[in-house]
Amino acid sequence: MENFDFCNPTRLVFGRGSIAKLGELIPESKRVMITFGGGSVKKNGVYEQVMKALAGRHLVEFWGIEPNPAVETLRKAVELGKKEKVDFLLAVGGGSVIDGTKLISAALLYEGDAWELVQKGAYDHTVPMGTVLTIPATGSEMNNGAVISRRETQEKYPFYSNYPVFSVLDPMVTMSLPDFQIACGLADTFVHVMEQYMTSAGQSRVMDRWAEGLLKTIIEIAPLIRENKDDYDLRADFMLAATMGLNGFIAMGVSQDWATHMIGHEITALHGLTHGATLAIVLNGTLRTLRQQKREKLLQYATRVWHLVKGDEEDRIDEALARTEAFFRSMGLHTRLSEEGIGEATIATIEKRFNEKGVAFGEAHNVDGTMARRILENCK
Amino acid sequence: MENFDFCNPTRLVFGRGSIAKLGELIPESKRVMITFGGGSVKKNGVYEQVMKALAGRHLVEFWGIEPNPAVETLRKAVELGKKEKVDFLLAVGGGSVIDGTKLISAALLYEGDAWELVQKGAYDHTVPMGTVLTIPATGSEMNNGAVISRRETQEKYPFYSNYPVFSVLDPMVTMSLPDFQIACGLADTFVHVMEQYMTSAGQSRVMDRWAEGLLKTIIEIAPLIRENKDDYDLRADFMLAATMGLNGFIAMGVSQDWATHMIGHEITALHGLTHGATLAIVLNGTLRTLRQQKREKLLQYATRVWHLVKGDEEDRIDEALARTEAFFRSMGLHTRLSEEGIGEATIATIEKRFNEKGVAFGEAHNVDGTMARRILENCK
Repeated sequence: MENFDFCNPTRLVFGRGSIAKLGELIPESKRVMITFGGGSVKKNGVYEQVMKALAGRHLVEFWGIEPNPAVETLRKAVELGKKEKVDFLLAVGGGSVIDGTKLISAALLYEGDAWELVQKGAYDHTVPMGTVLTIPATGSEMNNGAVISRRETQEKYPFYSNYPVFSVLDPMVTMSLPDFQIACGLADTFVHVMEQYMTSAGQSRVMDRWAEGLLKTIIEIAPLIRENKDDYDLRADFMLAATMGLNGFIAMGVSQDWATHMIGHEITALHGLTHGATLAIVLNGTLRTLRQQKREKLLQYATRVWHLVKGDEEDRIDEALARTEAFFRSMGLHTRLSEEGIGEATIATIEKRFNEKGVAFGEAHNVDGTMARRILENCK
Repeated sequence: MENFDFCNPTRLVFGRGSIAKLGELIPESKRVMITFGGGSVKKNGVYEQVMKALAGRHLVEFWGIEPNPAVETLRKAVELGKKEKVDFLLAVGGGSVIDGTKLISAALLYEGDAWELVQKGAYDHTVPMGTVLTIPATGSEMNNGAVISRRETQEKYPFYSNYPVFSVLDPMVTMSLPDFQIACGLADTFVHVMEQYMTSAGQSRVMDRWAEGLLKTIIEIAPLIRENKDDYDLRADFMLAATMGLNGFIAMGVSQDWATHMIGHEITALHGLTHGATLAIVLNGTLRTLRQQKREKLLQYATRVWHLVKGDEEDRIDEALARTEAFFRSMGLHTRLSEEGIGEATIATIEKRFNEKGVAFGEAHNVDGTMARRILENCK
């Protein structure tokens, strides 16, 4: 096991009716800016619940943080927040709204342009923020990471700053989500776990078991959610799994990969594809390409997650890879670039960008432009 | 899943050589009281490492916090701490030293006697504390609980106050632990997990998988640690499992039991038996006695933890119970009261105490004096 330093101070307020607790969670003296996405919260009752819980407070609303939040949009929120002297942020939405609000939270206390913070990669001077999560997927509600896009240059990069002070997770708010968004959330969670699990074997028995536990849960609940749309407990496990998938709880003392994510981000930046949808494609390419490097862990994955305990080892790995792709397809997601009309031009662009960056991603730091091309060609 | 409110702010600094980081973890301005147990830290090098890391600081030492820390001892530490105006506590030891220091931390800011705080059960005004853990077992290094004894009345009760600000976990410090202490630590961890897992089935798939992951890890590493005394990774997984077993990470949205612990505490209070050793006995009695109530979860436990997938359900439960007892015995622990010379007199005392308290413990609030007697008779 590697040495590690872990701390996750976010308070989770979880369950039916928990949005009503916002009044207790945000000090009365605060000047709060509430950040939203495109307006679905007005249809599903979340907006109304938030406003009721915070009635009588000093509130400013900022609307329009888009999927894959763009610095161009967030700059406007920063301007409004500075003008209104807000000293607390409440993100109400999915991972994009929360991610965007993390950059706002840092930029409110920064003199320069918000994109400079993204280029720096991290900033630890921030306005406190809470969240009301509406789409389980990114885990942003309980970590200090964000991914920010810049439309004018088609770039998308990670940014690290503050953990939310609290996150309110009411599984009821997921009841109105369309199947595609649930599928993307489950795929995103699955791949988050894989980025922390599908690495060198034998690093931590505890972390392996916990990652496998999340993978098995996601595989188990995916078909059940489609068939039992009113089942609260399924939604609760979905929401809990998504948060636990990227809050550091399964990352203690183990190496991580994230090459699939770095390639997926490029596809979103270039084509606007939903984050989870990119991962459902790229992960298969990564596993096929790095099969030898990850062989021991792939075999453990085949055994423990897919219960493939008998037969030739290579056959079991083949079967585990096939089942992984089939799992994504069973949720209605694409698993091939060609299904999205993505071909050589995009592969060449990503290859070039990775090579220009001069860094190689992945656990073994070997996913450079050339390797990214191989991965993408393996999921054409 | 039940609604829940989760927050665990403790920072874990984990790995080889991490005691050296104490200088960064405790602000220089602090007047620190370091609390110790009986002196084993002077033999295994921990004391030296702590003193080196904090050289030049304002330090007060308090020695002699015993196993099952007694308020009679802790009062002396409170007196010293008040006199020396300490404003930071560093507990260096196992669960008893850490538990005792939690009461000191609260009592330093309390006018009355420390036992009044234990009787209240909780206190949230505390002096900040950190820990250097030397015996993985209780999980106290990452939770807000403590168990405090009162020698003069042979009482032992839980007390809740503060989470450590940080805990330093260096698996190397466990290398010098005798087999019995490792066995007790593993048994303690196993039963902590069982208290949060062996309840009503179907509450949370995620939490079930994580609890099962810890149980499987403990079962897997117990014989390996005995055979490979220099294996760092085994110690690291032991230490990580013990902390994860009682830090709230496997308790989200699920009911808990704790009847085994409440009975075990009485045995320690009456006979001075090591905490983990009492649990290795009582758990078997609890599971036998509440077999029908816990039937569905026992079957899941048999299937997933012990891989008993074939045959009659009652036979599989029988076998799971037998393997649980055999697991404790394989570590050299006793599993019957008679092996400790404990008989009817103690059973009668515990029955009377539980009945006098007028509360019934356990998930179903049905472990009153009569049920406690049945549990104890089932592990005679």
